[in-house]
Amino acid sequence: MTRYRIVVEYDGTDFVGWQRQEAGRASIQGAIEDAIFAFSGERISMMAAGRTDAGVHARGQVAHFDLVRSHVPRKVLTAINFFLRPAPISILEVEEVTEQFHARFDATWRAYRYRILNRIAPPALDRAQVWHVVAPLDVDLMNAGAAHLVGHHDFTTFRATHCQARSPERTLGILKVVRDGDVIDVFAEARSFLHNQVRSMVGTLKAVGEGRWQPDDVARVLAARDRTRCGMTAPAAGLTLMSVDYRPRAFDGSFV
Amino acid sequence: MTRYRIVVEYDGTDFVGWQRQEAGRASIQGAIEDAIFAFSGERISMMAAGRTDAGVHARGQVAHFDLVRSHVPRKVLTAINFFLRPAPISILEVEEVTEQFHARFDATWRAYRYRILNRIAPPALDRAQVWHVVAPLDVDLMNAGAAHLVGHHDFTTFRATHCQARSPERTLGILKVVRDGDVIDVFAEARSFLHNQVRSMVGTLKAVGEGRWQPDDVARVLAARDRTRCGMTAPAAGLTLMSVDYRPRAFDGSFV
Repeated sequence: MTRYRIVVEYDGTDFVGWQRQEAGRASIQGAIEDAIFAFSGERISMMAAGRTDAGVHARGQVAHFDLVRSHVPRKVLTAINFFLRPAPISILEVEEVTEQFHARFDATWRAYRYRILNRIAPPALDRAQVWHVVAPLDVDLMNAGAAHLVGHHDFTTFRATHCQARSPERTLGILKVVRDGDVIDVFAEARSFLHNQVRSMVGTLKAVGEGRWQPDDVARVLAARDRTRCGMTAPAAGLTLMSVDYRPRAFDGSFV
Repeated sequence: MTRYRIVVEYDGTDFVGWQRQEAGRASIQGAIEDAIFAFSGERISMMAAGRTDAGVHARGQVAHFDLVRSHVPRKVLTAINFFLRPAPISILEVEEVTEQFHARFDATWRAYRYRILNRIAPPALDRAQVWHVVAPLDVDLMNAGAAHLVGHHDFTTFRATHCQARSPERTLGILKVVRDGDVIDVFAEARSFLHNQVRSMVGTLKAVGEGRWQPDDVARVLAARDRTRCGMTAPAAGLTLMSVDYRPRAFDGSFV
């Protein structure tokens, strides 16, 4: 048996999300598993580092799977991509790993980017990859609000009510807001996130950027540990899983 | 009568290009003129700085048109965008200009970007906005080839056989190739371009980047003034009209 680690890019717009669901609804996982079956004849079940929701994209999702028969990694990449066509999913890398490797449990760092298009005109290009916000956002205020979220906290306020994680505590390594013209990127990085955590934090920071909330309000709603105190959850389209790392990391992302 | 100058973004994928054509085929120009009619009741004819081909995009196309009745620019922007929906065309700016202003003839500088995705895996995100090239490209060689094209030349080799410009001579201000990971951008800037000039130059530079042509071959085919000596014409999808400027410019783009 051979275990493969793959890096995946996808446009999540027309999928129910990463995870395979009941028949008839297309998932990223299902599409890739079907392509693997088409070339190998083996029915496998993949594990991914981040189970992205419907509409969420990835440029560096990582997953693993096992095949009874062994293949050259480059052939695996080409074959899966061939059978994936024309789905907007692409395998960027394939490598053989030991059977000790686990894409989800061994991940030490997950990096997400949330992109806001902050202008009056709606997007024409990139419209499936941004949240269009008309009200001018103050990035300095957003960063001041974001600073309250970095570090180890109980993120009950910022997780979906149906989140299945046992603990609401997480250590947020990086949360920074960068503007380049009309584009505002929120970079969120940590060992792991709760369900909807990034989108919940971005929705709240947007309220801060508009001036409707003060930066200190972020600390207040965090301390409340109450989901109903959260700002809106930002739409899925703006979110992209950029990379997953497996090297030992400190809470701020530096290598240990 | 009021003349308006507009800045337009569009995804050219599903259009026959900027220019209005026979009935039944969607053009960018036609879609915007229809939206202007829907809100103003006036049938106008727009002039644009660059008549982009089918599949070519814009982030900063400039056009002008006249309306008998005057409207506040902000209202014009909102109204056109409302009636354009759901077409992937967006009016970014509207301003009143004098009747002396002409979007095409007054333009002093046009900036295009041609994007190549240079990796084995096909694109999943951004697939309508890149040319996927698998063979590794050497950007230094491409820049060495590009240097032969900058300046004032007879670009007969690099223009479409059906190009309608009276003269094949143009002054190319900037042609530079920049790599950022798997993404290679070719920036082409000049007062004006011949039909298919940017895509013809990029197709030739790709052959140089692959090592199939030497950088000096670019000088040779340019001097030949023979369309059949050109490399392939790069596909439309990778090309985007980034901006158009109207201030006096020297040939290298600096202000005079």
